[in-house]
Amino acid sequence: MSGNSFGRMFRITTFGESHGQAVGVVVDGVPAGLELSEKDVQVELDRRRPGTSRIVTPRAEPDKVEILSGVFQGKTLGTPIAMVVKNVAFEDEPYEVIKDLPRPGHADITYLLKYGHVDYRGGGRASGRETVSRVAAGAIAKKLLKSVGIRVLAHTIEVAGIGVDLDKISLDAVQKADENLIRCADQSAAKKMVEAIKKAQEEGDSVGGVVEVIVMGVPEGLGETVFDKLDADIAKALMSIGAVKGVEIGAGFGMARMRGSEAVDQFTVDPKTKKIMTLTNNAGGILGGISTGMPIIARIAVKPTSSISKPLTTVNLKTMKEATIRVKGKHDPCICPRIVPVIEAMLALVLADHMLRAGKVDSSRFK
Amino acid sequence: MSGNSFGRMFRITTFGESHGQAVGVVVDGVPAGLELSEKDVQVELDRRRPGTSRIVTPRAEPDKVEILSGVFQGKTLGTPIAMVVKNVAFEDEPYEVIKDLPRPGHADITYLLKYGHVDYRGGGRASGRETVSRVAAGAIAKKLLKSVGIRVLAHTIEVAGIGVDLDKISLDAVQKADENLIRCADQSAAKKMVEAIKKAQEEGDSVGGVVEVIVMGVPEGLGETVFDKLDADIAKALMSIGAVKGVEIGAGFGMARMRGSEAVDQFTVDPKTKKIMTLTNNAGGILGGISTGMPIIARIAVKPTSSISKPLTTVNLKTMKEATIRVKGKHDPCICPRIVPVIEAMLALVLADHMLRAGKVDSSRFK
Amino acid sequence: MSGNSFGRMFRITTFGESHGQAVGVVVDGVPAGLELSEKDVQVELDRRRPGTSRIVTPRAEPDKVEILSGVFQGKTLGTPIAMVVKNVAFEDEPYEVIKDLPRPGHADITYLLKYGHVDYRGGGRASGRETVSRVAAGAIAKKLLKSVGIRVLAHTIEVAGIGVDLDKISLDAVQKADENLIRCADQSAAKKMVEAIKKAQEEGDSVGGVVEVIVMGVPEGLGETVFDKLDADIAKALMSIGAVKGVEIGAGFGMARMRGSEAVDQFTVDPKTKKIMTLTNNAGGILGGISTGMPIIARIAVKPTSSISKPLTTVNLKTMKEATIRVKGKHDPCICPRIVPVIEAMLALVLADHMLRAGKVDSSRFK
Amino acid sequence: MSGNSFGRMFRITTFGESHGQAVGVVVDGVPAGLELSEKDVQVELDRRRPGTSRIVTPRAEPDKVEILSGVFQGKTLGTPIAMVVKNVAFEDEPYEVIKDLPRPGHADITYLLKYGHVDYRGGGRASGRETVSRVAAGAIAKKLLKSVGIRVLAHTIEVAGIGVDLDKISLDAVQKADENLIRCADQSAAKKMVEAIKKAQEEGDSVGGVVEVIVMGVPEGLGETVFDKLDADIAKALMSIGAVKGVEIGAGFGMARMRGSEAVDQFTVDPKTKKIMTLTNNAGGILGGISTGMPIIARIAVKPTSSISKPLTTVNLKTMKEATIRVKGKHDPCICPRIVPVIEAMLALVLADHMLRAGKVDSSRFK
Repeated sequence: MSGNSFGRMFRITTFGESHGQAVGVVVDGVPAGLELSEKDVQVELDRRRPGTSRIVTPRAEPDKVEILSGVFQGKTLGTPIAMVVKNVAFEDEPYEVIKDLPRPGHADITYLLKYGHVDYRGGGRASGRETVSRVAAGAIAKKLLKSVGIRVLAHTIEVAGIGVDLDKISLDAVQKADENLIRCADQSAAKKMVEAIKKAQEEGDSVGGVVEVIVMGVPEGLGETVFDKLDADIAKALMSIGAVKGVEIGAGFGMARMRGSEAVDQFTVDPKTKKIMTLTNNAGGILGGISTGMPIIARIAVKPTSSISKPLTTVNLKTMKEATIRVKGKHDPCICPRIVPVIEAMLALVLADHMLRAGKVDSSRFK
Repeated sequence: MSGNSFGRMFRITTFGESHGQAVGVVVDGVPAGLELSEKDVQVELDRRRPGTSRIVTPRAEPDKVEILSGVFQGKTLGTPIAMVVKNVAFEDEPYEVIKDLPRPGHADITYLLKYGHVDYRGGGRASGRETVSRVAAGAIAKKLLKSVGIRVLAHTIEVAGIGVDLDKISLDAVQKADENLIRCADQSAAKKMVEAIKKAQEEGDSVGGVVEVIVMGVPEGLGETVFDKLDADIAKALMSIGAVKGVEIGAGFGMARMRGSEAVDQFTVDPKTKKIMTLTNNAGGILGGISTGMPIIARIAVKPTSSISKPLTTVNLKTMKEATIRVKGKHDPCICPRIVPVIEAMLALVLADHMLRAGKVDSSRFK
Repeated sequence: MSGNSFGRMFRITTFGESHGQAVGVVVDGVPAGLELSEKDVQVELDRRRPGTSRIVTPRAEPDKVEILSGVFQGKTLGTPIAMVVKNVAFEDEPYEVIKDLPRPGHADITYLLKYGHVDYRGGGRASGRETVSRVAAGAIAKKLLKSVGIRVLAHTIEVAGIGVDLDKISLDAVQKADENLIRCADQSAAKKMVEAIKKAQEEGDSVGGVVEVIVMGVPEGLGETVFDKLDADIAKALMSIGAVKGVEIGAGFGMARMRGSEAVDQFTVDPKTKKIMTLTNNAGGILGGISTGMPIIARIAVKPTSSISKPLTTVNLKTMKEATIRVKGKHDPCICPRIVPVIEAMLALVLADHMLRAGKVDSSRFK
Repeated sequence: MSGNSFGRMFRITTFGESHGQAVGVVVDGVPAGLELSEKDVQVELDRRRPGTSRIVTPRAEPDKVEILSGVFQGKTLGTPIAMVVKNVAFEDEPYEVIKDLPRPGHADITYLLKYGHVDYRGGGRASGRETVSRVAAGAIAKKLLKSVGIRVLAHTIEVAGIGVDLDKISLDAVQKADENLIRCADQSAAKKMVEAIKKAQEEGDSVGGVVEVIVMGVPEGLGETVFDKLDADIAKALMSIGAVKGVEIGAGFGMARMRGSEAVDQFTVDPKTKKIMTLTNNAGGILGGISTGMPIIARIAVKPTSSISKPLTTVNLKTMKEATIRVKGKHDPCICPRIVPVIEAMLALVLADHMLRAGKVDSSRFK
């Protein structure tokens, strides 16, 4: 029973191997009448695409999206929106070599054990290239959320042990995080992070980091009881991204070290809206799995890239003897900046789904 | 669209409010022929039940399980197994008082905003009492897993900032963690934790902590591509537990601070099984969302109990003015020990589901 | 992967074997604030229960429903509603005898082949007793539908080859169908049907028939594109009832013999509502899988009861030799009248589900 | 909540409007290692495509399938298989004209009422063109089933009231049904049917019919308890096909007129396999929702095409006054022959899904 679909009412099904014909996604459940064009999607795919910088992989991936269905005269039809991004022709890469040498830290070995027959070229289905589908679908989710006043923003907050002071980061700064290579809202920390990445790269190594995502404008009442809690669905969404090894909501692991009197967000009345709000937001906008109306905040732990040029010990599957492997090719020494648009996409998908589940998208507005 | 079901092939649907008639669960997808009795379930419910110690809530909850269907002559039928645990009569608790005073840190306010009509007694559906259903279902999952050699073990590894040295904790010690009140495998740390909890309690406060779960005997190949990765499903399962604010797999957030050369688990050949294994297990037994055959390791951040006797600021919903609340009653000042059987149950449910999804339970063995 | 759940947003999960502890159902997805009591459910269960008449099985089944969760102060909470109906103690029935003699026309053999371990008493999970769960859940669906002006009515239209003239049956007559034993809207045909049933019964035989269901007050726009068409979901709902061998919508199989010019329902404007309506209703209220606003009409073919006292040839599973079986006990010689509340329940479940899916239940009305 | 997916373990998601960029399907859940090429799919699409005959619509639809993912070196990967069929450029068809004139018998009106914004060209998503996706996915299901000895065959058994004698139709004849235009296994009845169709067409009218599908080689034990019965899933699959108004299994509606002693399929022992079999097959291979091992037989009622050149009364949506419409263009006067490959595809999809659900596809065979 495969696992290539996500969401209940805003539901996506992705497909594609890294070096196959194409990657893509079918998005089902988008209400009819939403304005949508390929441009809306392309702008997010362009954010995901590696740039020319040294710290992100310089492979040429034009990633031109094509919408095959579900949109007519510039508006969605309420029918499935299929999007395809063709894979460009890859030069003669020496993938045959690694066929019998599973790369440590990669899914080569587990896919082989599970499926028997695998597309070993560039990681196949397990490649980070599958995030093209997430980002394309997320772009539609973002468009839908924008129409109801919800914004999703992510930024790198830690790389190679270099962190930022979250208390000093304004929402404005987060919005400008895209301006530096590492997508960090603190321009001075960003420089140090880039230095650390370069250093690791020069040493044939890689580094990890932490990325934060913030959702503004979330209405109260999103999320369901017990299992399909908003934070539970966010946790799944984020942990499903390759390289993510941890997820926390609000104060997260920090909350394990607080006392109750310190951790609890006490209530007050918002002077403007006259609604209940909390004085702090350790809960990250979610109580009992249901949104409070405060900003939703989540963070992920991103492991260092496993593709490094330092030699690693693997096992030759033919001889079942240890062997040494050096992963060649140009790889990102730190994938935090590239994960930023992906984590935004995943949050947007979860929020769009729960907005529909809660009946909070009045689709008649689009008619 | 409600969220009271979990799992795809080993699928549970839970029900019940804290102070209603009963709590319970329907477990669908259990293969026919598995030996099962109420005793198998009761033993786990008894582990969940609060004891007489000062550090866990002393309410009397006999929690006697009754199996209503799906079992005949001591064996499962392959049909849904419905289990019910009656709620005992509650003494005249002053719940009417809190009707208009949402408790900070609790779901009172979000349930009210979402549903309009709520059972405000003891948290209703949002009460920790719903974990009775999880533990009962998990007991069946454990029985199924045991039949194929898989064991799930959890233990408290940090409370109030007092941690244990994981490198010094043996699997044997973990199995004996239940012997102390806090369910910590390090008996000396356990004492300090209990002290810290008592101190917080005396001050009308509460503390949080970290709980770890280990799964031994997992075959390789569990988990699916892209979204239904094993770690993604574990993250959802664990984040869906009340009071959990963070989830990590393997080295987790620690991996964000490692270099690639340090983080990558290199391969070797297991001298006994002649299968590929890894020298370290930073990945926590999962690569690309699919199990490697190494132990699965996950950890959760548990927030301090929000029910404290220190005064907290809330808003009176009738007057919409600030008010002070002190949560009376006997509450756990630290829920880590009570979460131990719950996290085990959730891991067992995820593993049982993925064992079935991968076709790894040969039900003919039960016939 | 079991199949004991039905519906997407109004979702039920049923459980229970005929001679086990209980049968029951968990209903998830009912909006909060709907008035509901056990009485609402009991009245439908009483319609399902066999009477004292000769033509329906005279076993004593009090079928008292108990609501365990999801209702507080007479209103739904939006949380799962668990309902249980205890099975009464059965007298010493000679079920051991049939253990090795699968009854022809029954599921004894297929359950045994599929599950290996079965509850052979009274059909176990395959017994018609499972419809208690359908009817109980359907009662809630009916209550929800009633609140938005939708009514579901069923009646027997053919038994043992004796039919009624549908053109002469008024909606009023259908509402009074419950007044005779066979639940036929044509009182004179009803008499003939009862005669035919008695005759068959005297000869140790049974008869089949056709039951029709009508849904009034359906808004336009229910049903989804391609697979989850309203008629597709109705077909599944009805074919899932034991003893049903055919389903048709509107003119159904009769339409296969019409010409297009005769079959097509032409459009006009309803003088009262000023909405589009059709002059005829061969489509049974559904075009392209989506409701038109006209009444929904469906019919099912009900096979004659397989439990007859005439001898039938079976195979002894121990010897694998042919053997003769006579099904003893008191069985309905025609189950059409008892299927009437069941088909109503199933239609109500499908409609409630699609009303929620289409966002047509404004739950704020209940608040 | 959209409805463009079908199946649980062998799960398809289709997309595409009749006159959009493309139609297509993502097939998830196909085991790894199955040999598959575009040719396997193309042969089924070619069967679906209209021929040059007068009785099927002569529009040029080359329908060339392209597999974008999930297949590598001629074998499936266990990952989603995305298939796309481009829509050819349509000549300047006068669809603007019908924009405000919903065609009676078509989904124009219900789609408009439901979605507000519709692709009115050629029926959009409601067009019969969506069956391209079903047939393409069905081709893969057939390939999988073939590998385990299951074959699916359909044939036209009634058109315009002209039927065949099913007792005289051999399986051989059914396999040759494709040889005549109407896909009827009785060559002489086929001629009469074609005559009747031509006559209707000359009169600007259309005719309906009945199509039967047979599945050979089905193992016992497919199908689940209560709701996901094999026949229930078949009923949904078939009723979801446009133009289908009725579904029956085995003796179907005929069974409503039988006595129990006549209807019940009595047991005997198959002299070859030494397994239990039935002497007759009124049940159509399914008892209690679970396959018996006998051939599965289902039939559908196909309504006459609603696109006829005779004038029909509709309502002009701008003026809300009655208007007359004549559907121009070349339309099939009887869609039975074109529905044959579609019904085969749907049965293959249901069977493949239930084979996987029952764990009856040993995917290690493909490795």
